[in-house]
Amino acid sequence: MNKIEQTVKKITNIDVKLMDKAQERLDSLTKPQGSLGRLEEIARLIVGISGKETPELKNKVIFTFASDHGVAAEGVSAYPAAVTAQMVYNFLRGGAGINVLAKHAGARVVVADLGVAEDLKISPGLVIKKIGYGTKNMAKGPAMTKEEAIKSICAGIEIFEDEFARGIDIIGTGEMGIANTTAASAITAVFTQEKIEDITGRGTGINDAGLKNKITILKEAIKINKPNPGDAIDVLAKVGGFEIGGLAGTILAAASYKVPVVIDGFISGAAALIAYGIEPKVKDYMFAAHCSVEIGHKTILKFLGLKPILDLNLRLGEGTGAALGIGIAEASIKILREMATFKNAGVSERGK
Amino acid sequence: MNKIEQTVKKITNIDVKLMDKAQERLDSLTKPQGSLGRLEEIARLIVGISGKETPELKNKVIFTFASDHGVAAEGVSAYPAAVTAQMVYNFLRGGAGINVLAKHAGARVVVADLGVAEDLKISPGLVIKKIGYGTKNMAKGPAMTKEEAIKSICAGIEIFEDEFARGIDIIGTGEMGIANTTAASAITAVFTQEKIEDITGRGTGINDAGLKNKITILKEAIKINKPNPGDAIDVLAKVGGFEIGGLAGTILAAASYKVPVVIDGFISGAAALIAYGIEPKVKDYMFAAHCSVEIGHKTILKFLGLKPILDLNLRLGEGTGAALGIGIAEASIKILREMATFKNAGVSERGK
Repeated sequence: MNKIEQTVKKITNIDVKLMDKAQERLDSLTKPQGSLGRLEEIARLIVGISGKETPELKNKVIFTFASDHGVAAEGVSAYPAAVTAQMVYNFLRGGAGINVLAKHAGARVVVADLGVAEDLKISPGLVIKKIGYGTKNMAKGPAMTKEEAIKSICAGIEIFEDEFARGIDIIGTGEMGIANTTAASAITAVFTQEKIEDITGRGTGINDAGLKNKITILKEAIKINKPNPGDAIDVLAKVGGFEIGGLAGTILAAASYKVPVVIDGFISGAAALIAYGIEPKVKDYMFAAHCSVEIGHKTILKFLGLKPILDLNLRLGEGTGAALGIGIAEASIKILREMATFKNAGVSERGK
Repeated sequence: MNKIEQTVKKITNIDVKLMDKAQERLDSLTKPQGSLGRLEEIARLIVGISGKETPELKNKVIFTFASDHGVAAEGVSAYPAAVTAQMVYNFLRGGAGINVLAKHAGARVVVADLGVAEDLKISPGLVIKKIGYGTKNMAKGPAMTKEEAIKSICAGIEIFEDEFARGIDIIGTGEMGIANTTAASAITAVFTQEKIEDITGRGTGINDAGLKNKITILKEAIKINKPNPGDAIDVLAKVGGFEIGGLAGTILAAASYKVPVVIDGFISGAAALIAYGIEPKVKDYMFAAHCSVEIGHKTILKFLGLKPILDLNLRLGEGTGAALGIGIAEASIKILREMATFKNAGVSERGK
């Protein structure tokens, strides 16, 4: 049995009975029943996921995986491919958006190289699990081999498990990879069967001509590769990315350890689709942090039946939305844990 | 010149030039331009409000004002009026929703009695500025005199100014008062001219018969009192509440000190309407924390042209949504202050 199968086997159903108990507790707190709306929903689900009556969210971790994409050669991004590596160094120095927002949320950031096109300097805080020097150009053939797809998922599982030893109560997903909205659009199109035009956006900010080109390239990639929506690893291999495979592995691993996962935006959403394709049960372990400006993201959320926590017109990726979502999730758990009950506070309950 | 006039006189236009400068800085940071969406909008506006190029949000304060409402005698709430005082004690002991969420946001809570129906025990942390022992029943006549309305606004100004000495960089508004959604609905109806049915909700959770009764009472209150939408103090006096007047004063005071104001839900929104009726410039100093379940809140947001930061189906009040909104506002300012620029980080800018 390989690592992916081992991980999937450990994923159980969430504890619905304990969720009812959590709602009872929420209803006993000094507030009108249900008046904290989605905070109550989130707290309840975290109880069900963790299997703990009053879980704590002390250890918060964002996994930000970087990788390059062969399809960048087709001019699908507004930025040069060199930016992937440059941004990894920026993550390691603490200067990127994800560093600022993770710090605000009190979360650690685990930065990993899953397939950046150059050899990165060994640096403290950088996990190196390189599957290759970027994927191949999916417009010309499969992005990676099936073996590489499996390896990328296993790498994500390993990164999670290594970090789990340091304590993890909730995770967020994040990524960096020039041209990776192209891979995310391809994955979304394959699983949801929506038209390419309806799930392809401007990524980092391409113009109209660039968007037209991106759509043409995506159609070509799907036509040539014929990814099989019934086989998530085939989809990942043909039109995915190493960081996307890695995140899919991390999502599966988190679920197998009963850890809630806050999915960031569009590319993280594509990784969620891969994880869901491998094991549908993971869906119950996921929160959608926000609704991205990238139009395909809405399609993913609808497909997975996830309702975003935030809607702030974000489109940066890196895990930035997940960091903010984790802040709200933590607030919800503090409500469950720290509020007084009607009884303890001597507050009268509602009439009749 | 009275205190209200003095305060209003100090409210200036926000600094639009500095906001352009803030956007320049945001555009120089290592992210695609505009990719942090509303975080960028919020940061820019806080720069314009504060008049500082890189403001800090160290001192965060939620003002939670409590008061009783004579109209509670009409059975418009699911809870007995005694709950107002009981909840104030809960605030002071730290057991309420606002305590938990303010702590999560790193904000202080200032609890003030503007008109609770009983004498509260003097306690550390309780500000007593009682205008009366609850308002009169607006279904029978004006809720308060014009003098009391002015006094409640001045009390809110004074509470802000006293707290300002301890340091304030951003504030949130909050309230507690059994039956105060009835007052908020009346204020909303008068200013926005919408039908009572369209802006009246279930508050803490009344049933269909209760809602029908609440609507009847509201129509009666407006018919009897004829509040003048051109005179905000008249509206406050006839169908408002002491805590609503207090919050209106605090909002005006914050604007006069160039402090951004995060407005909580429906009742805070009604206070914002009063403040706006007194001085329309305050609108530029306001953020809408969230969109409440109370249907009238959407009408207020539309009327004031405010777009809520969060939408989490909250309807608790107390400032709970404002506390979460302040967390997002702080994140936005950290982006402005802490992210690396393309130049400093050695990251390539976009092509062409």
